[in-house]
Amino acid sequence: MKPEPRSTHFNAAGEVHMVDVTSKETTVREAVASALIRLSADAAESIRRGDAKKGDVLAVARLAGIAGAKWTSHLIPLCHAIPIEAVSIDFDWVTDSEPGEVAGAARQSLRCIATARTTGKTGIEMEAMTAATTAALTVYDMLKSVDRSMEIDQVRLESKSGGKSGVFQRTPDSGEATAGDSAN
Amino acid sequence: MKPEPRSTHFNAAGEVHMVDVTSKETTVREAVASALIRLSADAAESIRRGDAKKGDVLAVARLAGIAGAKWTSHLIPLCHAIPIEAVSIDFDWVTDSEPGEVAGAARQSLRCIATARTTGKTGIEMEAMTAATTAALTVYDMLKSVDRSMEIDQVRLESKSGGKSGVFQRTPDSGEATAGDSAN
Amino acid sequence: MKPEPRSTHFNAAGEVHMVDVTSKETTVREAVASALIRLSADAAESIRRGDAKKGDVLAVARLAGIAGAKWTSHLIPLCHAIPIEAVSIDFDWVTDSEPGEVAGAARQSLRCIATARTTGKTGIEMEAMTAATTAALTVYDMLKSVDRSMEIDQVRLESKSGGKSGVFQRTPDSGEATAGDSAN
Amino acid sequence: MKPEPRSTHFNAAGEVHMVDVTSKETTVREAVASALIRLSADAAESIRRGDAKKGDVLAVARLAGIAGAKWTSHLIPLCHAIPIEAVSIDFDWVTDSEPGEVAGAARQSLRCIATARTTGKTGIEMEAMTAATTAALTVYDMLKSVDRSMEIDQVRLESKSGGKSGVFQRTPDSGEATAGDSAN
Amino acid sequence: MKPEPRSTHFNAAGEVHMVDVTSKETTVREAVASALIRLSADAAESIRRGDAKKGDVLAVARLAGIAGAKWTSHLIPLCHAIPIEAVSIDFDWVTDSEPGEVAGAARQSLRCIATARTTGKTGIEMEAMTAATTAALTVYDMLKSVDRSMEIDQVRLESKSGGKSGVFQRTPDSGEATAGDSAN
Amino acid sequence: MKPEPRSTHFNAAGEVHMVDVTSKETTVREAVASALIRLSADAAESIRRGDAKKGDVLAVARLAGIAGAKWTSHLIPLCHAIPIEAVSIDFDWVTDSEPGEVAGAARQSLRCIATARTTGKTGIEMEAMTAATTAALTVYDMLKSVDRSMEIDQVRLESKSGGKSGVFQRTPDSGEATAGDSAN
Repeated sequence: MKPEPRSTHFNAAGEVHMVDVTSKETTVREAVASALIRLSADAAESIRRGDAKKGDVLAVARLAGIAGAKWTSHLIPLCHAIPIEAVSIDFDWVTDSEPGEVAGAARQSLRCIATARTTGKTGIEMEAMTAATTAALTVYDMLKSVDRSMEIDQVRLESKSGGKSGVFQRTPDSGEATAGDSAN
Repeated sequence: MKPEPRSTHFNAAGEVHMVDVTSKETTVREAVASALIRLSADAAESIRRGDAKKGDVLAVARLAGIAGAKWTSHLIPLCHAIPIEAVSIDFDWVTDSEPGEVAGAARQSLRCIATARTTGKTGIEMEAMTAATTAALTVYDMLKSVDRSMEIDQVRLESKSGGKSGVFQRTPDSGEATAGDSAN
Repeated sequence: MKPEPRSTHFNAAGEVHMVDVTSKETTVREAVASALIRLSADAAESIRRGDAKKGDVLAVARLAGIAGAKWTSHLIPLCHAIPIEAVSIDFDWVTDSEPGEVAGAARQSLRCIATARTTGKTGIEMEAMTAATTAALTVYDMLKSVDRSMEIDQVRLESKSGGKSGVFQRTPDSGEATAGDSAN
Repeated sequence: MKPEPRSTHFNAAGEVHMVDVTSKETTVREAVASALIRLSADAAESIRRGDAKKGDVLAVARLAGIAGAKWTSHLIPLCHAIPIEAVSIDFDWVTDSEPGEVAGAARQSLRCIATARTTGKTGIEMEAMTAATTAALTVYDMLKSVDRSMEIDQVRLESKSGGKSGVFQRTPDSGEATAGDSAN
Repeated sequence: MKPEPRSTHFNAAGEVHMVDVTSKETTVREAVASALIRLSADAAESIRRGDAKKGDVLAVARLAGIAGAKWTSHLIPLCHAIPIEAVSIDFDWVTDSEPGEVAGAARQSLRCIATARTTGKTGIEMEAMTAATTAALTVYDMLKSVDRSMEIDQVRLESKSGGKSGVFQRTPDSGEATAGDSAN
Repeated sequence: MKPEPRSTHFNAAGEVHMVDVTSKETTVREAVASALIRLSADAAESIRRGDAKKGDVLAVARLAGIAGAKWTSHLIPLCHAIPIEAVSIDFDWVTDSEPGEVAGAARQSLRCIATARTTGKTGIEMEAMTAATTAALTVYDMLKSVDRSMEIDQVRLESKSGGKSGVFQRTPDSGEATAGDSAN
């Protein structure tokens, strides 16, 4: 489709640089990313029991995800620091099997969804991705003494809006529904 | 099996704390974690083309992974800062389909493997997990202008050694091969 | 008075999130916060002697306060990062006893006042509070070998202006003089 | 008493330096610090209501305190980075009036207590002080929309042990019960 | 020339503060800084050999320089955090001897040039200076096992534009070609 | 001389990694690095005038240098975090011309010397280099409104001791007096 797909993080000489966004438009932008935590029945039960207590696993993971969003520009080498104006982290137990999901008898699945918004010159996808991932890693850390074989799957961008490239919405067959642009 | 599986990050009152490792033994510990990046043929080609250039995608991701390992204790709320004495990040193209892997015709898979070592009082699993994840997120960032529907799967601990709980080695059916202990 | 006083940091489900300020107005905002350091005559004398030297205690504390302001969004979990456009730290020896102050014969009091300004969408109170506190903690650190029983009191917001909620000015009886709003 | 009380953070020329601890003994050290949050009945009620929910104010403050401990060596200019091996944050509602406490009819008091341990060459007092303060500032941040006139008082070292200077235990009259030494 | 040359980082009392830029104009600003690395023939050869490989010295240094730019406001005490909208790092082998350069038979010279842009209220000189320096220090780190006597020279601002003070362009005799202003 | 001079930061495949120091010996190590700031008579005078005041330029630069040492492992991509047990920063006005120094009529020279010590498994050279550089950059920042053409020269390692490679002492002709080893 696109004749020369190419990362915008390289210049003509093939060297990395932080893409110049000086002349880009400042708009409201939003991104939603998610990660799926697959865990044993024991680990899942440990989270559920915690729901009624202070300091439960998901409350810790939620804060870690918000903090992770704020660290994004220091973690991802070529990311711009943008004004993060909203972050929220939600968790959903995935009870039904989904298309494209691995069947796992004794495994349960918890989806972590991060939503982030900015009014800036470049997109907030990486902040949402980092938030979802950091939250998921924190769940792993909190429960690794119960289940070391936990796994994080399906870390992905669910949707984005704002900026020149417009709206991206993930579709069930993981195909990209809208045209992507180069730098945001 | 284990009668009361319970996260060690909570005290008896259900409140989080940073686990006391004062009296734990200082030993050499190693952890290996991995993450699988599923990407379009275009994005995969963009990485492969880069192999002959300076500043290629995987070189950036490798450095991001090493830096991510160093940030772990600030990203994961209840992690101890430990002396990270070695980190390496390797990438492997996964050509054959694997047990437990989703079939995806046009998708290609790149496995990122992080190995970390410490001489410390607590394990280095989270550093390896964070390194693998940060490297994978960086690949996403570098190539999102080519393929926004990229996905990170199978973020998991491959093995660990050292410490009271001894060796953990992931098995093909994702079952935990060795007994886990509580706090490292 | 207010029928349902409620922290804006929680959503309807009682879960924390970083409050969405996308649609708030960008205005010039200022906040002044202070902290009172109570110290022994020896420790006070140590500060005063230092005034004529390079590297004195208050010069170190002043820089620590400015740096503390810059770290606020990483220290306070649900704080937004805002453009900090001015920070100053002043110190005043409190010679007369004040209303609401504990009498302490051999104790002397040093007030640290932090003033911060932004042109942003949310208030700069936490930056001023963090600056005052970090400066005071640094005084403690510099002099703890002289006086470990030093104490930091009256860490408080003195005033704020800008934003939808308008002006807040602390009154002698610690009552709030103006109506507060929800999110800044 | 002590003939020349002097901060150890200065050299003979009056210039600051990071004190050389190369030849100090590695021992287990503990410090306990606390901070008292004075808040309105409304704000106190807001915390208490939250106790039954996920994401309550004290759970957020507890995590902020633990993170604050880890940031200490970057916040306090002349602090050494030491291996923080345990941190816990506890909260107590102070119901009875205490000696040395200001009477405040409508005000309620919440004490935040931070305990930190290290096996290191220098003390962990500043980590405990920073943890208690960061937790208290976070309570302020979470509830400032309810009560901007909240105040943090009595930020102080409660006790320390380990190291050459031995045990320090705060006494009711705030006097130092044991001899202090110079550098830890 | 200028009757009272004076750092703008001090107030009238001679105390440092973060200069108030609240009322300054937001404009596009650019700065170029450079650093010259003098290294042995062995070290130079080690860099050149690396050019055809992944993970070469200059690729690592380039990323370190970009990251260094992002850390500037935390490293330089009185710097404002500004939105860094572009950073690039270039390397040039200096083959001919230059005016004002020390002759060194066996030494070779590699110039590192950092260019940074912002749309902000204050200049981006320190980000460019920090980027060039961090890149040069990284070259030192990567090659110190080959040549410990490497040296970094001529760390300097090459040019700046934007803001009230207008354009600065370094001239061969290192004189300042244009009038400087006070705060940016 | 050395048959295959090669950076130890690359593995056999030419990929960067954080060198494994697990099995290296823990010893006391020291490094001294320096940087030379060349500045106009006006800027030099501005520093000298400040010597009698609080908050003078060199006091700020000294603290920045100490903080810079603590940030080294986050700034220099392949550096290990080591326990920094002492840092001091000294400044000397260089009045006489030195061998190998560029003659500059109206320029004055200030040497910044950073000394750092650790008890660790790898050397502390980069911490000393980063401390000297950060201090010098801070002098630039503080005085750039007086003299934008200031220059930092001769950033170099003066000496190191400890570790397998033994003592390195810089000689007047910049030659390396002792044999270097590979990884520290």
